[in-house]
Amino acid sequence: MERITFANLQAELRRILTSIGFSAERGDRCARLFAENERDGVVSHGLNRFPGFVENCRDGTVDIHAAPELVQTMGAIEQYDGRSGVGLLNAQFAMGRAIEMAGGNGLGCVGLKNTNHWMRAGAYGLQACDAGCIGLCWTNTTALMPPWGAAEKRIGNNPLTLAVPHPDGHVLLDMAMSQYSNGKLEVMRRRGDQLTLAGGYDEEGKLTTDPGAIIDSRRALPIGYWKGSGLALVLDLMATLISGGDSTAVIRQQKNETRVSQVFIAIDARSLAGARALEQTVGEILTDFCGVEAIDGGRIRYPGQGMLATRQENLENGIPVEAALWNQVQGM
Amino acid sequence: MERITFANLQAELRRILTSIGFSAERGDRCARLFAENERDGVVSHGLNRFPGFVENCRDGTVDIHAAPELVQTMGAIEQYDGRSGVGLLNAQFAMGRAIEMAGGNGLGCVGLKNTNHWMRAGAYGLQACDAGCIGLCWTNTTALMPPWGAAEKRIGNNPLTLAVPHPDGHVLLDMAMSQYSNGKLEVMRRRGDQLTLAGGYDEEGKLTTDPGAIIDSRRALPIGYWKGSGLALVLDLMATLISGGDSTAVIRQQKNETRVSQVFIAIDARSLAGARALEQTVGEILTDFCGVEAIDGGRIRYPGQGMLATRQENLENGIPVEAALWNQVQGM
Repeated sequence: MERITFANLQAELRRILTSIGFSAERGDRCARLFAENERDGVVSHGLNRFPGFVENCRDGTVDIHAAPELVQTMGAIEQYDGRSGVGLLNAQFAMGRAIEMAGGNGLGCVGLKNTNHWMRAGAYGLQACDAGCIGLCWTNTTALMPPWGAAEKRIGNNPLTLAVPHPDGHVLLDMAMSQYSNGKLEVMRRRGDQLTLAGGYDEEGKLTTDPGAIIDSRRALPIGYWKGSGLALVLDLMATLISGGDSTAVIRQQKNETRVSQVFIAIDARSLAGARALEQTVGEILTDFCGVEAIDGGRIRYPGQGMLATRQENLENGIPVEAALWNQVQGM
Repeated sequence: MERITFANLQAELRRILTSIGFSAERGDRCARLFAENERDGVVSHGLNRFPGFVENCRDGTVDIHAAPELVQTMGAIEQYDGRSGVGLLNAQFAMGRAIEMAGGNGLGCVGLKNTNHWMRAGAYGLQACDAGCIGLCWTNTTALMPPWGAAEKRIGNNPLTLAVPHPDGHVLLDMAMSQYSNGKLEVMRRRGDQLTLAGGYDEEGKLTTDPGAIIDSRRALPIGYWKGSGLALVLDLMATLISGGDSTAVIRQQKNETRVSQVFIAIDARSLAGARALEQTVGEILTDFCGVEAIDGGRIRYPGQGMLATRQENLENGIPVEAALWNQVQGM
């Protein structure tokens, strides 16, 4: 591991993106999103995904110049065609529209079809919170899990983000429907780490904490067994219907995961509750949640709180990156 | 167990409700909701809850005459005060308003504060589906689970329903944030049954399938460990902010669970996608989901499918009810 500054990381990624044809402005925003994910400790969707992303831009899977196109408006809902564009920029645009629509209308909902991987779901929840909104968003994916009771991959892990604004640090829940995200399993395998709790089945059908065995068997465990399986299905149904796009059943027929469907909802919590009541109510709930005694003698943290501590440390001491990966990126 | 007809069950409950002061119309609707829950096999929130509900009506916890009152409108969001009214009727009203608002506007969102237990969350999802809408709703509750990492109850299990309309049977996900709902644990304990999977911890801090041990230790397991704990927190935050009502932190200070906060969202899927595309898209996704081979040689069912089979059987052969409970109700 070596430590690099946020500015250095972002500049390096921006250099590469402009070298493959990104405009300065789009390259800057895209590089920032990748760098912010790494800065916040979301190493499963940061630097490690960058070489593959650049490859997809080069091979045409991702159209680096495409902007989302409005397909249909129906009151509080807008549907966009992502035109196989950059998943991160499309998602940032879509949450931006949801936030604009929430202004005055209380709530805005955007369905986005035909887009690409947005990397970290939580990024767009934080975007909503920075605008004083509650943010909800989710995406479908290719088939990554078996339905509960089956052994063959058929449903996505369909990451879901729910985020609530708070001045001391937004509440950010960013969760795949598998107990461990695909990205997390890959990072853990590469590092030779074991999971703390069973995350799926091995080839013999036994629950295991070995990330490699789960990747090989293709049997990741849904959160809450049948509940996560059902939730993944319903999130796919809703994303497909609200965006008018492709479902996991269609996406999984393709060689690569493209043309995914996403939903972005912003709720103008600051106007609805009043800025002061918003801060006070959220503060009281978080104080109550974090005030309970932890079994291990440590502290109970709310979702997003640990990430903030990591961000602070990485901004002060530099962001830790795997040397081989960083060398690879610098050589691109 | 004895079997009774749906008509008989509903008539008996209606008789009791009108005898304690319900108007004929409200008593009829409330009795129907209780009877439908029992008919659909949701025995945790049907007849077994009726004597306690009547007691709460008598002791004034539930104001049987109160109707929800509009507090604030902000575009696609309406906030209502449930005025300590009948939880089931308040919820039915609120989802009804969300459905009306979705007409033309694509989406309607209702926050309902100061209401009482709605019994079965799924009932209001089905209500949205019958109107061609995607339905989402959730409620907060008193503290029923410890946050992940703690041993003291501090968060609600905050049941969440997501429902998608389909002519062959709506997709209905109705899930508490605990692996097993409180009602389910109570029913299983009364029947002397064990859970199929660990549902919480016993007094010694060991995972257990004994429903009584979990009720006694007060340590139900959140779905997906830290994920369900975080989801319960965020659902409480959102319900509190969107309704302008009380949070679990406030509700748990009371002797009884009252003044809960709820959210109802309807999305006019039929208008958004077109009736034919809606049916076709949902059908394709469900066919793909249910088409995978089951490990045990049985069939993979989508959420809500098993419930439909139970409903059919109960309508044909009568609804099975515990004899002692049915005698108790008949004597009321």
